Amino acid sequence: MIATAESCTGGLIVGRLTDVPGSSDAVDRGFVTYSNAAKVEMLGIRPETLEAHGAVSEEIAAEMAAGALARSQAGIAVAVTGIAGPGGSERKPEGRVCFGIANALGVRTETVEFGPRGRAEVRAATVEHALALLRAALR
Amino acid sequence: MIATAESCTGGLIVGRLTDVPGSSDAVDRGFVTYSNAAKVEMLGIRPETLEAHGAVSEEIAAEMAAGALARSQAGIAVAVTGIAGPGGSERKPEGRVCFGIANALGVRTETVEFGPRGRAEVRAATVEHALALLRAALR
Repeated sequence: MIATAESCTGGLIVGRLTDVPGSSDAVDRGFVTYSNAAKVEMLGIRPETLEAHGAVSEEIAAEMAAGALARSQAGIAVAVTGIAGPGGSERKPEGRVCFGIANALGVRTETVEFGPRGRAEVRAATVEHALALLRAALR
Repeated sequence: MIATAESCTGGLIVGRLTDVPGSSDAVDRGFVTYSNAAKVEMLGIRPETLEAHGAVSEEIAAEMAAGALARSQAGIAVAVTGIAGPGGSERKPEGRVCFGIANALGVRTETVEFGPRGRAEVRAATVEHALALLRAALR
């Protein structure tokens, strides 16, 4: 079973996973933690990590993925947190997205700079990359 | 602030809400409770309600909306649970979707029969109807 923890994509990853008939056999749940309060309350993100690294960081992506795994029935969880734009924030550029993927063996993270290509395109590219990470991890 | 609780739409409602730049001012979080375990654990749905009425029922839509409101920082929550298809289930027809909308004053529910028009179309129509319910409630 799969779980997602999504910030900048706002549910589009789990939305894509559940496009497929029969996906209830593989999709357990999605945590759409748009606000920082949601990240803390739904996924157990530590406020100190938010304070130290900001919401868009590999540290937060790791805690989101681990939190989604721990708080679900899933065996694998993917997490994304990024700046879809328009415009950057927190001294971080538009198009930066941090990914986390967690299973029983541990958590892996990475950052992709999709660049300032506009909100819709950054979100779509983020969904594709998250699905590719899931596919690779499940192989 | 808005929260969503989604089953058959799998995150597409909160995905649409967060299409809009600046939506972090209005969107708190989304609960994508695809499995029954997720409904119980994330939203506090009572197993007895699931047993008595099935996941696709106004009773569950009401508990989902009330649960999302109680377990978020939102002032309004919309919930959907339905049969996107293909095919019906639980002696309920494809295209049946139950909606719940909750705020501090209470919870309202309704059922819409979108008919057997295919999974993608039922999901898209469900998103539009949920957004219309939110718009009407916020007016």
